[in-house]
Amino acid sequence: RFLLDAAACAPWLRPRPAETHKGHAGHLGVLAGSPGKTGAAALLCQGAAKAGAGLVTLFVPSGLNPIMEVKLTEVMTLPISQTLEGTASLEALEGILGFMEDKEAFAMGPGSSLQPETRELMRRLVTEIRCPAVLDADALTAVSEDPAVLSRAQAPLILTPHPGEMARLTGESTGTIQADRLGTASRFSEKHGVFLVLKGHRTVVAAPDGRLAVNGSGTPAMASGGMGDVLTGLIGAFLAQGFDPFEAACLGVYIHGAAAEEVHAAVATRGLLASEILPAIPIVIGRLERSP
Amino acid sequence: RFLLDAAACAPWLRPRPAETHKGHAGHLGVLAGSPGKTGAAALLCQGAAKAGAGLVTLFVPSGLNPIMEVKLTEVMTLPISQTLEGTASLEALEGILGFMEDKEAFAMGPGSSLQPETRELMRRLVTEIRCPAVLDADALTAVSEDPAVLSRAQAPLILTPHPGEMARLTGESTGTIQADRLGTASRFSEKHGVFLVLKGHRTVVAAPDGRLAVNGSGTPAMASGGMGDVLTGLIGAFLAQGFDPFEAACLGVYIHGAAAEEVHAAVATRGLLASEILPAIPIVIGRLERSP
Amino acid sequence: RFLLDAAACAPWLRPRPAETHKGHAGHLGVLAGSPGKTGAAALLCQGAAKAGAGLVTLFVPSGLNPIMEVKLTEVMTLPISQTLEGTASLEALEGILGFMEDKEAFAMGPGSSLQPETRELMRRLVTEIRCPAVLDADALTAVSEDPAVLSRAQAPLILTPHPGEMARLTGESTGTIQADRLGTASRFSEKHGVFLVLKGHRTVVAAPDGRLAVNGSGTPAMASGGMGDVLTGLIGAFLAQGFDPFEAACLGVYIHGAAAEEVHAAVATRGLLASEILPAIPIVIGRLERSP
Amino acid sequence: RFLLDAAACAPWLRPRPAETHKGHAGHLGVLAGSPGKTGAAALLCQGAAKAGAGLVTLFVPSGLNPIMEVKLTEVMTLPISQTLEGTASLEALEGILGFMEDKEAFAMGPGSSLQPETRELMRRLVTEIRCPAVLDADALTAVSEDPAVLSRAQAPLILTPHPGEMARLTGESTGTIQADRLGTASRFSEKHGVFLVLKGHRTVVAAPDGRLAVNGSGTPAMASGGMGDVLTGLIGAFLAQGFDPFEAACLGVYIHGAAAEEVHAAVATRGLLASEILPAIPIVIGRLERSP
Repeated sequence: RFLLDAAACAPWLRPRPAETHKGHAGHLGVLAGSPGKTGAAALLCQGAAKAGAGLVTLFVPSGLNPIMEVKLTEVMTLPISQTLEGTASLEALEGILGFMEDKEAFAMGPGSSLQPETRELMRRLVTEIRCPAVLDADALTAVSEDPAVLSRAQAPLILTPHPGEMARLTGESTGTIQADRLGTASRFSEKHGVFLVLKGHRTVVAAPDGRLAVNGSGTPAMASGGMGDVLTGLIGAFLAQGFDPFEAACLGVYIHGAAAEEVHAAVATRGLLASEILPAIPIVIGRLERSP
Repeated sequence: RFLLDAAACAPWLRPRPAETHKGHAGHLGVLAGSPGKTGAAALLCQGAAKAGAGLVTLFVPSGLNPIMEVKLTEVMTLPISQTLEGTASLEALEGILGFMEDKEAFAMGPGSSLQPETRELMRRLVTEIRCPAVLDADALTAVSEDPAVLSRAQAPLILTPHPGEMARLTGESTGTIQADRLGTASRFSEKHGVFLVLKGHRTVVAAPDGRLAVNGSGTPAMASGGMGDVLTGLIGAFLAQGFDPFEAACLGVYIHGAAAEEVHAAVATRGLLASEILPAIPIVIGRLERSP
Repeated sequence: RFLLDAAACAPWLRPRPAETHKGHAGHLGVLAGSPGKTGAAALLCQGAAKAGAGLVTLFVPSGLNPIMEVKLTEVMTLPISQTLEGTASLEALEGILGFMEDKEAFAMGPGSSLQPETRELMRRLVTEIRCPAVLDADALTAVSEDPAVLSRAQAPLILTPHPGEMARLTGESTGTIQADRLGTASRFSEKHGVFLVLKGHRTVVAAPDGRLAVNGSGTPAMASGGMGDVLTGLIGAFLAQGFDPFEAACLGVYIHGAAAEEVHAAVATRGLLASEILPAIPIVIGRLERSP
Repeated sequence: RFLLDAAACAPWLRPRPAETHKGHAGHLGVLAGSPGKTGAAALLCQGAAKAGAGLVTLFVPSGLNPIMEVKLTEVMTLPISQTLEGTASLEALEGILGFMEDKEAFAMGPGSSLQPETRELMRRLVTEIRCPAVLDADALTAVSEDPAVLSRAQAPLILTPHPGEMARLTGESTGTIQADRLGTASRFSEKHGVFLVLKGHRTVVAAPDGRLAVNGSGTPAMASGGMGDVLTGLIGAFLAQGFDPFEAACLGVYIHGAAAEEVHAAVATRGLLASEILPAIPIVIGRLERSP
């Protein structure tokens, strides 16, 4: 196990060649958002764009499409069928899978809701999606009902639970998890063959092959709604750019915390909005790119 | 009685520990906004987020939900029943109370309208909400019709009237109130058992136990629409973070004025928008956190 | 006649006293916007807020209200009846007049459309409004059909035509007007008893009592859509704050140009958006306030 | 052939005279956007405004008009008939042509969709529009089905394909095109009598009279969605300001890359959003204007 800091991340993140075009930078598909929770979808997608994804497409329940078109500009939206509650419907499954066939990465869960049909859609996507995927928030709760779906996945999965979500995934108490964060993350990762990001102070990143990292970046001002959604976007963007899932997770986790430090550590331990770290993401990325 | 300045506020506001997560930072529920007055709701919620509330959820008349989803990103919304005029309906009472059961603080009134049913909803919330609450603007007018509801509250209340609203609450003239701001605030606070913030030049903060403070921060450029809504958000955020109501009110009042000075005192005595003080809130907070 | 520069404007614009509250700063009512032209309404209202109006309320065709609620935050909206084309309806007349009864100033015309019923509404407002008012854009075209309405006004009027609109008002050619800008403005002002702002390079301000000023501020980058809407907002804000109409017009014209110089004169002669001058308005105002 | 750099562009771009008004700066009409792709339309229009177009009007499928009114402020919108899929309908043809009769330039294609009727509308506009026009994105795909329409155009056309779109236009493979970028661009330009901008690293600009330029500005961080839309706006703005089409294309291409360098080259090779280059456009323009 090692400490995730600039020195650890820099070797992975090299400057792009001059010839890069948006096709090289990958296309990330995103399933996120429901009535009252569109901000989560926006933050995820913007985080991905600021971390270098070439293109980002958000699958959005059709009734929310006008909202998301206003909130997002560089990110494209694709309206999908919705349930009576206005959340993503299972009927959208084939459309999402079809669109994702030639795309590089997928992310889902933030603000998706716990509507039963939406949860079923997310579990189906876990097993049927063919590209690497990040699962966060409501997607984790959906998976908690049947963690066995994880082992039926066709492509690498990264899960990003906070301790409460981890407790739901393992059936243990939050206290037990927090008492052995490294062990919990490692065991879950190896048992289910997934990459695991256990969030919280000193976030842990675990790979099924035993690689294990502990994050050294961040500030207590990150204790606010929406921060996790941005992290999911970062990890998704690095997957889309072709990074190994463990490296993508580590880069996302380290850069997320370092960007928050960049904009707010000298300011205060409170009052940092998730969207405010977006401009600092390329600043941290650039510092890594230029490390010798 | 004492002067509210940085020296008075600093002992209350200590840096957060590194382990803070959004659950520690509190969840603020907000009832605000009606057709034509959605800006008030946005300013309140954004003020709360910038003052360190971990999560903020806005209860919004359902017809206005798309507007608020666009205006807000880190803040979540929860659409509620509405009256024919598009304002918050009494039918929303149980839903609000149920959602608020495990939340830390509540704020209501800005832009809520004076629709009779909405006023009744706000009076019912005054007596039935179980967490500390801030009452501002239209909630104060609603209470003015029956100030006795204040003594039936189950949790601490903070009222934030300007002199005109204070006049409505006491039945006196604005002139009488302005002639004895300290006495008016103290007497009302003690009589009704509520915390009182009497706004205006040199805002007064009074507690039912006799504590009394006079604010020293602010600028004449704060004489513009929406400033009070941001203040309500600040006070709500400090309540959500577990501060004593008198300290929460004092911190909100001082930081609000100091943030306005920070961004505009060197600029002009006119032309400061309420939203423009938001970025300065954590700057002022950080200065207090770092005071020895 | 005199040159409008900082030295001319400074004596009019003194710092506000510390006790100022939003009631002292005036309430501006605005009628502006139609489908496709909501930006004009937004720019007018934001210009007014940045120039120190205490409150701003926009009367908006009801179908456009959700758009304006999103675009504006500190500014309140008041949905009104609309025509089949979605523009302001004559049925709104009584409601507007009732709301304006105790307000300080009114502005109308930008983006209002040339729909016949909307033009009739604007002509009726010219004669029935009881507070000082600024007429711009489509309100000028409406008045051009019957300039005699101007002399039936009950309160001071400020008209802000560009040369093309001036030509429509006088029935002369644009060439004739540009050949004698001072004379045209003076004669029209005296004949109709209105204050006149003839826009263009070296904008002219004329009062019915013969006062005449020529503006010295501005940059060629102001040749872009929406600039005039901001100017209307500035003049409206100074009327709302109780300035004499000639001084309000002069302050608006000078500050508008100086704000554009402030943000863009060192940058380029192209590519300045109207909204980009908003932040500089209080900077210029503050410089005037602090002049000895 | 020559290198497009500051020295090559400066002689074309002289400061505007003080007397410039928005009529001198030209009016650009734009057809862009469809459900899920409104960001493309916004970026095009904003790019045009920041490059000095006096006025910009966006023709938008009527169902998307509220979205675009929120996203844009200085730019006006004109709702048009839409297909069942919510894209621009052929029925809009006469209205667009009528509105454009006295306008200076036209741009179309970004986010327009590949809906068959919308493609037919765009092909009709290619042959019937009477002012210079830029064709990008979906307009290029529409033209690919029948490149012969290009020679029936009544006014100069500028096409801005990336290599994939170029391949569709010529029927060759992307590999063949990339192997001879200069030759491909020159031959297509001469054959069809259009100006051609072949995008990618070292963008090529070709004129039917044989003029040929290779761009020297840009950064790999431009490999992200929406960048091309901004470029189309820049070129459209220079056409509207009366520049020769080859110069307009060259200015757009060079300034686009230089603006990206300005804001991001020192930051990183990833994470630059298309909208983030907008503020730098006048900075680059100003540097050219002031070159001796």
